[in-house]
Amino acid sequence: MKPTSKIIPLKNTEITGGFWADKQKLNREVTIHSVYDRFAETGRFEAFKVNWKEGEPNKPHIFWDSDVAKWLESAAYIIAKTPDPELEKIIDETVDLIDKNRWDDGYFNICYTLFEPEDRFTARYNHELYCAGHLMEAAVAYYYATGKDKFLKIMCDYADMIEKAFVTEKWAEFDSPGHEEIELALVKLYRATGENRYLELSKYFVDVRGSEEDSYTQAHKPVREQDEAVGHSVRAVYLYSGMADLAAEYGDESLFNAADTLFDSMAKKKMYITGGLGQTCVGEAFLGDYDLPETSSYCETCADIGYILFAQRMSAIKPDRKYDDAAELALYNGFLCGLSLDGKGFFYDNSIEVDLIGINNPHDNRHRPFYPITQRLEVFSCSCCPPNVTRLIANIGEFACTENDGTLWLHHFMGGEFKGEGKAIRVETLYPENGKMKITCSGNFTLALRLPSWCRSYTLSGGKNATLKEDGFIYVDVTDGEVIEYTLDMPVRFIQANPKVRQCCGRVAVQRGPVVYCAEGVDNPLPLKGLYVDPKNGATLVEAPEYGISTIELDGYIRPESDELYYDYDESFTEQKIKLIPYYAYANRGESDMLVWLTKK
Amino acid sequence: MKPTSKIIPLKNTEITGGFWADKQKLNREVTIHSVYDRFAETGRFEAFKVNWKEGEPNKPHIFWDSDVAKWLESAAYIIAKTPDPELEKIIDETVDLIDKNRWDDGYFNICYTLFEPEDRFTARYNHELYCAGHLMEAAVAYYYATGKDKFLKIMCDYADMIEKAFVTEKWAEFDSPGHEEIELALVKLYRATGENRYLELSKYFVDVRGSEEDSYTQAHKPVREQDEAVGHSVRAVYLYSGMADLAAEYGDESLFNAADTLFDSMAKKKMYITGGLGQTCVGEAFLGDYDLPETSSYCETCADIGYILFAQRMSAIKPDRKYDDAAELALYNGFLCGLSLDGKGFFYDNSIEVDLIGINNPHDNRHRPFYPITQRLEVFSCSCCPPNVTRLIANIGEFACTENDGTLWLHHFMGGEFKGEGKAIRVETLYPENGKMKITCSGNFTLALRLPSWCRSYTLSGGKNATLKEDGFIYVDVTDGEVIEYTLDMPVRFIQANPKVRQCCGRVAVQRGPVVYCAEGVDNPLPLKGLYVDPKNGATLVEAPEYGISTIELDGYIRPESDELYYDYDESFTEQKIKLIPYYAYANRGESDMLVWLTKK
Repeated sequence: MKPTSKIIPLKNTEITGGFWADKQKLNREVTIHSVYDRFAETGRFEAFKVNWKEGEPNKPHIFWDSDVAKWLESAAYIIAKTPDPELEKIIDETVDLIDKNRWDDGYFNICYTLFEPEDRFTARYNHELYCAGHLMEAAVAYYYATGKDKFLKIMCDYADMIEKAFVTEKWAEFDSPGHEEIELALVKLYRATGENRYLELSKYFVDVRGSEEDSYTQAHKPVREQDEAVGHSVRAVYLYSGMADLAAEYGDESLFNAADTLFDSMAKKKMYITGGLGQTCVGEAFLGDYDLPETSSYCETCADIGYILFAQRMSAIKPDRKYDDAAELALYNGFLCGLSLDGKGFFYDNSIEVDLIGINNPHDNRHRPFYPITQRLEVFSCSCCPPNVTRLIANIGEFACTENDGTLWLHHFMGGEFKGEGKAIRVETLYPENGKMKITCSGNFTLALRLPSWCRSYTLSGGKNATLKEDGFIYVDVTDGEVIEYTLDMPVRFIQANPKVRQCCGRVAVQRGPVVYCAEGVDNPLPLKGLYVDPKNGATLVEAPEYGISTIELDGYIRPESDELYYDYDESFTEQKIKLIPYYAYANRGESDMLVWLTKK
Repeated sequence: MKPTSKIIPLKNTEITGGFWADKQKLNREVTIHSVYDRFAETGRFEAFKVNWKEGEPNKPHIFWDSDVAKWLESAAYIIAKTPDPELEKIIDETVDLIDKNRWDDGYFNICYTLFEPEDRFTARYNHELYCAGHLMEAAVAYYYATGKDKFLKIMCDYADMIEKAFVTEKWAEFDSPGHEEIELALVKLYRATGENRYLELSKYFVDVRGSEEDSYTQAHKPVREQDEAVGHSVRAVYLYSGMADLAAEYGDESLFNAADTLFDSMAKKKMYITGGLGQTCVGEAFLGDYDLPETSSYCETCADIGYILFAQRMSAIKPDRKYDDAAELALYNGFLCGLSLDGKGFFYDNSIEVDLIGINNPHDNRHRPFYPITQRLEVFSCSCCPPNVTRLIANIGEFACTENDGTLWLHHFMGGEFKGEGKAIRVETLYPENGKMKITCSGNFTLALRLPSWCRSYTLSGGKNATLKEDGFIYVDVTDGEVIEYTLDMPVRFIQANPKVRQCCGRVAVQRGPVVYCAEGVDNPLPLKGLYVDPKNGATLVEAPEYGISTIELDGYIRPESDELYYDYDESFTEQKIKLIPYYAYANRGESDMLVWLTKK
């Protein structure tokens, strides 16, 4: 099996306008600095001096290497497009500290070095390889951004040391890590260096799974036998992304098929309509098929990021809109919800519903204040999500296109320039505010345009031999200089869930393009479940620059008030305008109820 | 304020046929013995020897005195109607043990005597007065049943001792008990003995409340200032029953008004449609107004019993169908659900919904196996409910009628004979299977027939000057020997909840007369929330002798199957018969999903 296409990397992309240009500007001007400040305040950068002593504040935590690593990777992506000496200085200084404080054998880990130097690679659940993987991703990103290879070499040494510990000398006391990440990182290291042993090491970590009887960390079965997404949701999607990378590199069809089955397990049976993954906060984990409770919904921002990474890899290997459609849902909803409109606040979990009374029911609030949070925070004790958000936004251009010799696929719609080999496109669009795209082509090639499964009608002008194929892409032959106009109809749509999803029976969600909408208590009478929607009434768009996209007004209903608690059913309804905002924009105006699945009249 | 009427006591009632005669037969022949056996097996009767020693099995628990006390009270009610030397022997032997093991000062408590003799009346939360109250109720019941006064005198001694500890000598280290019960028990002791000091002591315990800042035990405010049912639901309704008793005895209008406000707080804002009270298992407690979650619903059987006791007292003082309607809902639903059809199994909490998948969600199952239980058990570690069920059923005749000089009120419809002073009625009815009642009158008096608020039409023949008053009773003058035929129309009704109850938006419940119906997984396709009901389609009754009442079949709908997880809303429905059984009869055919609030099409 040969991969059909490969990703057009960040260096050959430029986001030039529209929705994601705005997000990148905010990311570059606000978010990256705010995350840095919070991390610096909490001692996360200082921790790289590896000299913390008992009694001092800010005791390092086992996740901290990875928190900073993702920040470094984000900064590298930003530098790659917009040189920034200040960011570069922070990276260089941190790399110097890593160099200074790493072991002679190449190992680097703040907590193990400080607290348990004798116990390296003995505790499967302690995130050493997870931290290592994120540092490797950062090193690769920085190398690509600047050409400087100090960080990359440091991480190669570390990877070599890991190979010894796990494969050659086999003194590590577990086989696969308890939190996946190193697998995809090693593939990046291989691609940056051409050193095959890093690819082999990644393959080792993936293939060795199945010995642990631990479904929580996806080690309960050999990966090729895993057919249901289970356990910790973030770990799962990181593993699956690594599986996809290896399937591409080795042309491993059995691995691709396993990854495809796991993708469907999520996209067809376990995904919230927002693209959110992880149906329970207990263990940040998946539940069973079609079980999508609102009260326990987890949907960690990092899970959506991993899901987008996984879909990107799968749709490069075998372009199929099913991957991109799911990734797009996650991107514009579950992921984007993780960041406040001011660019400073983050959700760790992204609740599918905020029911303030319910949250304060002593039955449901046993996980508070950690879960569910109703307002974004600027930093968390486990602050994996904030730098993960910045790195995805900074690197968003890499998610737009893949290519092969004759074809360029446009997977995700964003304003920018994307240069393949001997071919390129410039996309001008305000998507997802509307579905209009003007695509200027350079070179003679076949342009493959995703037709999202939510789209019922579209227009396409320019090019020749336009053909919609089973993979959900419209293949059109274009010539150098040609301008393609591709317009997706984007009416407001009322969505039902599969009838097996018992939580959604009798309810509808509202979506326009990939954007899911919600009702917020600040705009609507309570209880929000008492707002009745009739899909026949249609919807009105209302311009809302503050959200980057229009809001929606529905001609809905509420039930008349009553003094009785229970009484004979009647059909009386009172008209009530229902205001909906993008799901990603909720919780930007104070604590409020929020509802995605509205009651169907 | 003088009470309008007084209860016609058990001794002047006889349940002769129909629904409650069947329940009493089962209670007499099966339940009382089964509860005895389980209590004997678990050492609860043996514990009255007060000689348990460390290392032996069945260590006595602070509730056990009350568990057995309620069994004794139940047995006394049964003996009062159906002499049973075996039951009488058990009672006598237990009374002998109490006599033998009580303290010289009259005190009796198994655990305190065994484990903490120095600490009597120091711990407000330790149920001493709760146990004492139940023993007093048992003693009064046994005295009425047999005329034997040994038990009664023992409990008078105990009450005298309590008076010293709390009022005269004031050495008790708290003022009001943490679990109410003694209040209403002392009123019973007063009524049985004529000793005013017991009434005064009850008044003390009620009036002293307000000093504890503890809303959980209703001690946060003076009772006359309490206007919302809060805290532990069983404790609350026991207190409120005592308040009603005192309001009647003292003609205390302020106390009656406070009790009435608290009644409305429950009946109009906090009661499940089943009459269940207590919206959260955490603390077995009330939540806020209109907050009636299904996932945390508590609805302890004992709370419904206390609610029925409270309503009985209120509707004697000031007959009003609002009390009886609520009590009737509790009686035929929340209470009766507490007992299995075979008479042996009990629910402690009565869930408003059984969602087996949800119950197994690690987010929701943190209280398992104690909560929610999906199948009835024969005994619990805290086994207050089983003997409470037997005592209410054995004493059910006392809930039918109240009277004053000229009027006899029929509050609850059951086949039997009810003898007031100079007036009596014999009721023949199969209620609640249908609404037909034949009432043969003895004496010339005014008969007041409750017209339930759920009843939209009725027929009444016989008597003169029939007048429906604002209290919801039809007052009709009857003469000696006259036969009144009173028939309530009992169509199947579709019920909506107040729109403030967000959990019920877009949903309907099905009720016939006072009986609420439910869908059970064993009869219907899953998920049960995927059953769509259209009230316009009506309903069909299906005879079901096994349940003591007809079942219901609806012409409902399900949504067509789909391979997709989310898709455009359409109006496609497939016809589906929906089988409903009485809520009280669920969980008699194995573990199964159960739903009361069905999705409205």
